Amino acid sequence: SLQRALWVRNVTGCKNIHLSSKLLLEDFPTDFLRAVTCQVCDHLLADPVQSPCRHLFCRTCILKYIRALGQRCPLCTFPCAPSDLVTPAKAFLGVLQSLLLRCPREDCREAVRLESFGSHCRGHQEADEEGDGGQGQTFNSYLPVNKGG
Amino acid sequence: SLQRALWVRNVTGCKNIHLSSKLLLEDFPTDFLRAVTCQVCDHLLADPVQSPCRHLFCRTCILKYIRALGQRCPLCTFPCAPSDLVTPAKAFLGVLQSLLLRCPREDCREAVRLESFGSHCRGHQEADEEGDGGQGQTFNSYLPVNKGG
Ligand SMILES: [Zn+2]
Ligand SMILES: [Zn+2]
Ligand SMILES: [Zn+2]
Ligand SMILES: [Zn+2]
Ligand SMILES: [Zn+2]
Ligand SMILES: [Zn+2]
Ligand SMILES: [Zn+2]
Ligand SMILES: [Zn+2]
Repeated sequence: SLQRALWVRNVTGCKNIHLSSKLLLEDFPTDFLRAVTCQVCDHLLADPVQSPCRHLFCRTCILKYIRALGQRCPLCTFPCAPSDLVTPAKAFLGVLQSLLLRCPREDCREAVRLESFGSHCRGHQEADEEGDGGQGQTFNSYLPVNKGG
Repeated sequence: SLQRALWVRNVTGCKNIHLSSKLLLEDFPTDFLRAVTCQVCDHLLADPVQSPCRHLFCRTCILKYIRALGQRCPLCTFPCAPSDLVTPAKAFLGVLQSLLLRCPREDCREAVRLESFGSHCRGHQEADEEGDGGQGQTFNSYLPVNKGG
């Protein structure tokens, strides 16, 4: 429901650090989109982990979720403790990191792979700071998390 | 349901021409597996097409299905005529064709990409026919369809 979605956003607090699937260059099939997005926050998976029931979440999202609501999968309620979380298949991570995103800067619009999107956006930020120092704040929102956690 | 699944298998009749996801080399997350399998027959997608509701099917499966049951998506019942079917995003097709499968031959067990799995298996077949001519029949089951349709 919408209410649950809003509540989840408040728990995870990742709106300004994760990336929207709307940045994807191509219009992917529904089930593929679902496969590359976090089943808690709906953003593109950031530092993904896999539950024993084989569902995927951003590491920070699932940890915050089970701390708040108990050790169960948000999707299927299968038992899920932090120590049960594993790294997804290497080939899957390769697919995820190779996804092409469109840079949202109106003066750029470059196609950038998910794996290098963070550094691409930091490049814009640094250029802005060296220039008139205007838009630094705005582009914080496009930095992927991967700061640990 | 199991009954529906059996019935669908009878409609599509693809058991001996499509590939099982059990051949995949790696243990993929649930949602990714769903994204690369046909939502009618549950095999790895063969010559996939996308419905207006963005669901994916083997071309032969969805055509046989809507011929038998009317022009609706088998998954979400959204209207779906043969002329509505489109080719999925190129990047998605690339992901699908690059999936690594394990050759089921006990004397081989090689890792082969989906895109070349058909020719790999034909290689075994030809070698068998040249040899004692024993196992040709058995490995027909592993040839992917892609014979048109
Ligand atoms: Zn998020
Ligand atoms: Zn998340
Ligand atoms: Zn689950
Ligand atoms: Zn850019
Ligand atoms: Zn099939
Ligand atoms: Zn099929
Ligand atoms: Zn549908
Ligand atoms: Zn082989």
